[in-house]
Amino acid sequence: MDRRTFHAELRAMGSEFTMELIERTNALLAPLVPAPDESGTTRDIAYGPHERHRFNLFRPAGSEPAPCLIFVHDGGFVMGDKGAPGAPFYNNIGAWAQQQGFACATMNYRLAPEVRWPAGRDDVIAMLLHLASHAAEYRIDPERIFLMGHSAGATHVADVVAAPSGAAGKFAGAIMSSGFYDLSIALRDPFKPQYYGAELEDWSPMSPLPGLLASRAPCLFALCELDMAECHDQAKALADAWYAARGQIPVLHVQSGHNHISGARQIGSPVDSFGPLIASFIRAF
Amino acid sequence: MDRRTFHAELRAMGSEFTMELIERTNALLAPLVPAPDESGTTRDIAYGPHERHRFNLFRPAGSEPAPCLIFVHDGGFVMGDKGAPGAPFYNNIGAWAQQQGFACATMNYRLAPEVRWPAGRDDVIAMLLHLASHAAEYRIDPERIFLMGHSAGATHVADVVAAPSGAAGKFAGAIMSSGFYDLSIALRDPFKPQYYGAELEDWSPMSPLPGLLASRAPCLFALCELDMAECHDQAKALADAWYAARGQIPVLHVQSGHNHISGARQIGSPVDSFGPLIASFIRAF
Repeated sequence: MDRRTFHAELRAMGSEFTMELIERTNALLAPLVPAPDESGTTRDIAYGPHERHRFNLFRPAGSEPAPCLIFVHDGGFVMGDKGAPGAPFYNNIGAWAQQQGFACATMNYRLAPEVRWPAGRDDVIAMLLHLASHAAEYRIDPERIFLMGHSAGATHVADVVAAPSGAAGKFAGAIMSSGFYDLSIALRDPFKPQYYGAELEDWSPMSPLPGLLASRAPCLFALCELDMAECHDQAKALADAWYAARGQIPVLHVQSGHNHISGARQIGSPVDSFGPLIASFIRAF
Repeated sequence: MDRRTFHAELRAMGSEFTMELIERTNALLAPLVPAPDESGTTRDIAYGPHERHRFNLFRPAGSEPAPCLIFVHDGGFVMGDKGAPGAPFYNNIGAWAQQQGFACATMNYRLAPEVRWPAGRDDVIAMLLHLASHAAEYRIDPERIFLMGHSAGATHVADVVAAPSGAAGKFAGAIMSSGFYDLSIALRDPFKPQYYGAELEDWSPMSPLPGLLASRAPCLFALCELDMAECHDQAKALADAWYAARGQIPVLHVQSGHNHISGARQIGSPVDSFGPLIASFIRAF
């Protein structure tokens, strides 16, 4: 499928976040994304005691220590998965990373309502510390570990940037795609109250935004043109706050003709406009 | 030169727009950019009666009609050039386009103070109409002509999108990089008054912004992280107005680790993060 056909189909779906949009976007992308080299793939490695403390490690060919991308999946804080064997997503990100000469850890994390904020942040920190302490074994460069998350996963990454705790100085940069940064405007959809607390009137003390602004970690933000309205609102709030604090627009990429689902699932496919940006960012630090 | 070294050098220069920044950035990029295939290049074709009504046409291999990118150079409305034979810039954009299978027209246009607004817009329209009427001769697809401009050139392109006159419907999309869109906040630097009129107190009637918001032409905006402050201010004004009018952030790409000069001069080089975005955009329509 060429780009014109793919984006015409996505534009015809619009931006309202429905099951139909999810399923149709997945169906379009599933045959287009690459499969990983399983000989360089190790699945379900534990990075903590919980059954969700598991990650898949994708290693590129060669014995040199590689930069490593940690990918934190989406799923509204209550669902989602790093990718089972044979599943298109998010094995696509591992496969793409292998092709680029990067290592990649796609991670699961604990979900609401079993856990609440800041458990997602704590799990990403645990993942980071695990990789840093096993860098030689995994053949990764501990100076070049990058965080990346999509949607709820971007919020977990933002929480780490904002308050890295023991992971301070242990990541080289952060990529946040279609995330939620300002909880004072976050929608009380069916999911977020399970993670932030339905009984709390004000979620803003849990916003990563002030900590993001205070951090000097290299950050790349992404959004999709056909993203759901809330993600546009969140990116606008981020840009407003960043500009007020720094007099600059943040490093923000709004991807033409992509929607909330294709945002991270395009990676490695022939219609991928995000992967080249991620690769450039990783290679610059 | 690898990306880490290149971006470290650019970051060390900062973002203040000085002759030193211009010369050092040019010196870094000149040896990195590709040279065009001269057998596919025709220089100094006239598209109008003025000596500045000249363009270079770069054609890719093959006989199929190719998408065509019109590139409108920078230079503060008073200087700048499409690229002499052997010059690195903007032959780099023609060379890159050839590699991508695109045709490219890098165009000169009339400059202030000899001419004033809207002469730049009128010249881009004349260029478009010339290409459209010679599409068969130049082996370009008249349905897939894209406009691109950098800095003052982006403003000329924005003026065409806002008020295309006889070029309405004759371009498939527009790429605007580090431009000036809201003249109510434009700095009265040594250059703009020569184009907009030092004697006029209010330039806002010449702003392309209202027309950009009213247009439905596909638009891709770009900015550089290390761009001059005015370009961040302009991008913020654009994003604010776009969000107010459409409830969305525009398709905007803020390029990590690039400055006002490398914005368009990186294209085709090994440190290019803009070219892949332009190619994706062109291939999507």
